[in-house]
Amino acid sequence: MKKISIQSHRRTEFIDITDLVRAELKDLGLRDGLVTVYVPHTTAGVTINEHADPDVAADLGNILERMVPWENHYRHGEGNSAAHMKASLMGSSLQVLVEAGHLCLGTWQGIFFCEFDGPRSREVWIQ
Amino acid sequence: MKKISIQSHRRTEFIDITDLVRAELKDLGLRDGLVTVYVPHTTAGVTINEHADPDVAADLGNILERMVPWENHYRHGEGNSAAHMKASLMGSSLQVLVEAGHLCLGTWQGIFFCEFDGPRSREVWIQ
Amino acid sequence: MKKISIQSHRRTEFIDITDLVRAELKDLGLRDGLVTVYVPHTTAGVTINEHADPDVAADLGNILERMVPWENHYRHGEGNSAAHMKASLMGSSLQVLVEAGHLCLGTWQGIFFCEFDGPRSREVWIQ
Repeated sequence: MKKISIQSHRRTEFIDITDLVRAELKDLGLRDGLVTVYVPHTTAGVTINEHADPDVAADLGNILERMVPWENHYRHGEGNSAAHMKASLMGSSLQVLVEAGHLCLGTWQGIFFCEFDGPRSREVWIQ
Repeated sequence: MKKISIQSHRRTEFIDITDLVRAELKDLGLRDGLVTVYVPHTTAGVTINEHADPDVAADLGNILERMVPWENHYRHGEGNSAAHMKASLMGSSLQVLVEAGHLCLGTWQGIFFCEFDGPRSREVWIQ
Repeated sequence: MKKISIQSHRRTEFIDITDLVRAELKDLGLRDGLVTVYVPHTTAGVTINEHADPDVAADLGNILERMVPWENHYRHGEGNSAAHMKASLMGSSLQVLVEAGHLCLGTWQGIFFCEFDGPRSREVWIQ
């Protein structure tokens, strides 16, 4: 397992980690199979989406905010229940196929770390 | 890795690919373990849900449309940000257990390719 | 593959199964790699989120109910389409890394079985 450190800078932020995952893949020496990208946090997630146009990630953050408003009479005392929900909607882990040492992503796909309660220092685990 | 070609016919469409995955499983010769179903697109996803009653898939499409309206002042110039969001909500990949060469699905479960910006020619990757 | 039996007691319920998964992990004898947690139902899912404060899980259930109301003129005759949608939003399976026989979860993370159409007798499959 390899650990990547990430620093987020806003409350909600989709950070493109595709190149970081690729670099760790080389270090892991994985040739064929599956790479797992795992987020060990409960107010952040991981997803695959378009990374050619940064407006897509901006829209994703805005849509999620509309679906799950930050303020909404939640019980959890820390006040960040919306971030917990968004984390579960995106998911804590994903798998990508690997062939001949290369990440098999679709043409427009990138891997995004999804910060929902930043700014924070975060980790992503790769295996 | 095996590639399945799919043709969608509407903007939003849940296409049952359970039998296609089963057929590829045989070709892959996988006996025990996990099969991964991966969608290499950013406006389509994959999910497991009931495939006995087609009304369930119709309801899923309608509920997602209500949660993420197609028109909503998005930034992304192509105008299909709702489709990108729905793709991340369903996810790009899933895993199903395999025993003795058989897909281990629950009684009511089927695997659905989720089109959110059709009609298009699409691919699903199986491993 | 190991099967865990679960009994839910309410329509919507997030049941912490972290310790159950840990126990099965020992039985499976898995030392390093990935453990898969699979839910073979179409009105229940699985997610990772905070399990220190039970208010988080309560908030998650409430937020999902607001996003996908139980009553909403659905087509599916059984009347539980909202539960099907919530199942797809959470997902049917997840993977957690395993090192030296231990589940690699983040500090605050627990694994939750997500009941959306209880009370029912349910299963979770571990591999």
